[in-house]
Amino acid sequence: MADSEALPSLAGDPVAVEALLRAVFGVVVDEAIQKGTSVSQKVCEWKEPEELKQLLDLELRSQGESQKQILERCRAVIRYSVKTGHPRFFNQLFSGLDPHALAGRIITESLNTSQYTYEIAPVFVLMEEEVLRKLRALVGWSSGDGIFCPGGSISNMYAVNLARYQRYPDCKQRGLRTLPPLALFTSKEVGKRHRPNPGLLILISSHVTTPSRRELRFWDLAPTVSEWSRLMREGKWSPRIWRGRLVWPRLRLTFHFFETFILDSGAVPFLVSATSGTTVLGAFDPLEAIADVCQRHGLWLHVDAAWGGSVLLSQTHRHLLDGIQRADSVAWNPHKLLAAGLQCSALLLQDTSNLLKRCHGSQASYLFQQDKFYDVALDTGDKVVQCGRRVDCLKLWLMWKAQGDQGLERRIDQAFVLARYLVEEMKKREGFELVMEPEFVNVCFWFVPPSLRGKQESPDYHERLSKVAPVLKERMVKEGSMMIGYQPHGTRGNFFRVVVANSALTCADMDFLLNELERLGQDL
Amino acid sequence: MADSEALPSLAGDPVAVEALLRAVFGVVVDEAIQKGTSVSQKVCEWKEPEELKQLLDLELRSQGESQKQILERCRAVIRYSVKTGHPRFFNQLFSGLDPHALAGRIITESLNTSQYTYEIAPVFVLMEEEVLRKLRALVGWSSGDGIFCPGGSISNMYAVNLARYQRYPDCKQRGLRTLPPLALFTSKEVGKRHRPNPGLLILISSHVTTPSRRELRFWDLAPTVSEWSRLMREGKWSPRIWRGRLVWPRLRLTFHFFETFILDSGAVPFLVSATSGTTVLGAFDPLEAIADVCQRHGLWLHVDAAWGGSVLLSQTHRHLLDGIQRADSVAWNPHKLLAAGLQCSALLLQDTSNLLKRCHGSQASYLFQQDKFYDVALDTGDKVVQCGRRVDCLKLWLMWKAQGDQGLERRIDQAFVLARYLVEEMKKREGFELVMEPEFVNVCFWFVPPSLRGKQESPDYHERLSKVAPVLKERMVKEGSMMIGYQPHGTRGNFFRVVVANSALTCADMDFLLNELERLGQDL
Repeated sequence: MADSEALPSLAGDPVAVEALLRAVFGVVVDEAIQKGTSVSQKVCEWKEPEELKQLLDLELRSQGESQKQILERCRAVIRYSVKTGHPRFFNQLFSGLDPHALAGRIITESLNTSQYTYEIAPVFVLMEEEVLRKLRALVGWSSGDGIFCPGGSISNMYAVNLARYQRYPDCKQRGLRTLPPLALFTSKEVGKRHRPNPGLLILISSHVTTPSRRELRFWDLAPTVSEWSRLMREGKWSPRIWRGRLVWPRLRLTFHFFETFILDSGAVPFLVSATSGTTVLGAFDPLEAIADVCQRHGLWLHVDAAWGGSVLLSQTHRHLLDGIQRADSVAWNPHKLLAAGLQCSALLLQDTSNLLKRCHGSQASYLFQQDKFYDVALDTGDKVVQCGRRVDCLKLWLMWKAQGDQGLERRIDQAFVLARYLVEEMKKREGFELVMEPEFVNVCFWFVPPSLRGKQESPDYHERLSKVAPVLKERMVKEGSMMIGYQPHGTRGNFFRVVVANSALTCADMDFLLNELERLGQDL
Repeated sequence: MADSEALPSLAGDPVAVEALLRAVFGVVVDEAIQKGTSVSQKVCEWKEPEELKQLLDLELRSQGESQKQILERCRAVIRYSVKTGHPRFFNQLFSGLDPHALAGRIITESLNTSQYTYEIAPVFVLMEEEVLRKLRALVGWSSGDGIFCPGGSISNMYAVNLARYQRYPDCKQRGLRTLPPLALFTSKEVGKRHRPNPGLLILISSHVTTPSRRELRFWDLAPTVSEWSRLMREGKWSPRIWRGRLVWPRLRLTFHFFETFILDSGAVPFLVSATSGTTVLGAFDPLEAIADVCQRHGLWLHVDAAWGGSVLLSQTHRHLLDGIQRADSVAWNPHKLLAAGLQCSALLLQDTSNLLKRCHGSQASYLFQQDKFYDVALDTGDKVVQCGRRVDCLKLWLMWKAQGDQGLERRIDQAFVLARYLVEEMKKREGFELVMEPEFVNVCFWFVPPSLRGKQESPDYHERLSKVAPVLKERMVKEGSMMIGYQPHGTRGNFFRVVVANSALTCADMDFLLNELERLGQDL
């Protein structure tokens, strides 16, 4: 029986509130933190959607439930959720469980405020400023601006909006229709059926009809910010893979070709978006070369370092981002490699002219009164298109305070070491074929099952190989032993991408991964 | 001394992780939950920004810190933060602390996953679907679609994007420049210097030059989504306040005028955005009348019910939203009146044609593989412009399970009762002048200090009155006794807006509020 009458009394009953929260926290510690990170437990407990619906009893009803029932529900939610902090979760660009970051998140949730004014978020307004200053310093800037956004796609979208506004500061008054067609550049490895070599992909901000449309892809900036943004995150400055190594095309020539094309079409180039750490391959664009082009042509340089930005903490590896200090804007997601917790995505700007507020500000008088008794320049709400904004800085700040630059640097370096270990171990075994030598902690490879070994010349080899990963993925998920993502990529069929990011990983976890793939695929 | 060497061992040391988290949770319970909701404690401990920076020692350094230092930092963060769960926090549209929602948030943070696929969020993909189904049922729809967004502004932005895409489904291929200028309608109470009566404000999606520009404000849809979105949230369908009551203008005539104007200018109207619960006054647009107009002219009707949507739970008060079932889309933020926790913002759609995925989808192959071993229609990631997306459903679901519809309804009804109590008490006292009779739980009023009472005819009365709220605000914040927002509004000078939303409030808190204002303002 539901004892709903007993529950509303919780409001204003501090003893009952405390008892409930302590009980829930006990469940969290036992189920999500201890079991959820233990290799003796499953990384996931797979259920078919219909069965899971039954198990969870999701329906929301008229009557409330007892505390005992609620605790059971908490246990079930955790039990059937994927344990992203588990050492065998290699599936995403985020993984691992940092206890200080989690502590920061729990405090954030208990304080439940919005980041927009010093009035209601005094600590977090100052803290965000300090964290952004630190991130900018790692980029190489002694001044600038920035903001935490709800994810990298929105950070990238902001960069485009700012670049356009900087070039056409009256566009808010005059309207977009008075602007010429705009062109932004990013890159994508396109298939051989389209071009002899992988080349730049131009995303054009307005419709241009042209016979070369089959070769280039046209996107309208505004309605397809979504597509653009995702492509940008996945975008690659055409790192050809040649003999297992990345080879960069001749950027300047390529640029020249497209500039001519764009000028013919009347489009005005305004932004180049480079990527530091692509999603699948973990590739880094050559930022110095790109910055040269941008400088010569007066283009805004945005660097999507959502994934790779954290490498700036490593003295050993930060050369991968050489030239980033020449960017106008950088997107960097500490919720990925640093495991700060979803979401923690910073947009960093070199600008010191208050561009963010000028571009996004609406001066809502009910929120941003100018007759306050403190310096209203502290109020950050007018920097964003959102109104309320979550506090995303505390989890990163607290983790950083606990680890220091040094602790975080060790983590990054350790991830590189383990990724290298994994690659070298793969080379010692039959059945593992690398897509490329990794630059970063994405290790991309095919598992070649026994029946396909030595059959590379067979006409259906690639087709059969591409069907291996989905089968192994199903087996590992249903057993709950580990999770590794796979995807097709360009003309390549499905291959696995292991992301070595969890700071609790050891060589033993890498060995397990290889053994487990061999075990799961031995009959294929 | 920092003992940074001791800390990295936390990764992979379950005992140390548990000890840290238990200690932090103890601090949270003591400081944020017990003291943070106790009327014997301050709602905020005001510090000037420079002093607060010193107290917090925000700088991120090379060396890490000991667990003892980290716990001290947690205490300081909580101590100097505003307690939005405190019974004297009336400052925002969110307040109060629901323990079940907080429990859901802590579980969400400990699981740290992204909402985009069934693969890595099986529980939450199904749960979001069920919660959205429940919210749609309250709107009056037996089918439809929806998604949780990072805040109401983004929900509103999505609605505009969807309405445009539905009208021009080829706009992604053809580009925005091939579309005619588009017009959307919302309303704003504009000042008397512009128009004799408050009237509709048209936000036009493209640049139109016209001599009437001084009267109407033109916005380009794409670059000013931010402004538009905020204005929309603040937008009012011109509820004139006449003799203390809201009076609605003749919508049809107004529409007719603007339609003629728009057609002359070549712009195509495509969307009307109504508001259920405006930010300052808490006003509700007459949805039936607006739906009639939309139906006649084939316009998409969006209802911004970010603030007022939760009233649908109350059988007594849901008539305020009569007609909402005729909308095409509804934005509803349970993080406001229901205290689910920031952020929890649902965009609900009547559409059953998969419009969200068609409009926003990018089919990123690395994320949304089509050869998965489960029904990929469950993957919601392609419904949004973001890539990663926070889990915002669990906190609402868990609270709802605990309270039931009945428990939540009691809360809403109780808030209305307390707001009415506050208004009636104000009328019994000297020195409180209502801006209007509230329809909702926003109580807007001027505090008239002793020196201004009976001086209504004085030429500088309004100017002097508008300076009262900022002074009282400074005093209450510096004492930490309570927090109430104020703002100017149209031609009205600064007035207070008390939001009666915290479900732990009692009549005693209302009495305190009035007494405290009198005490703080007795010398003015």
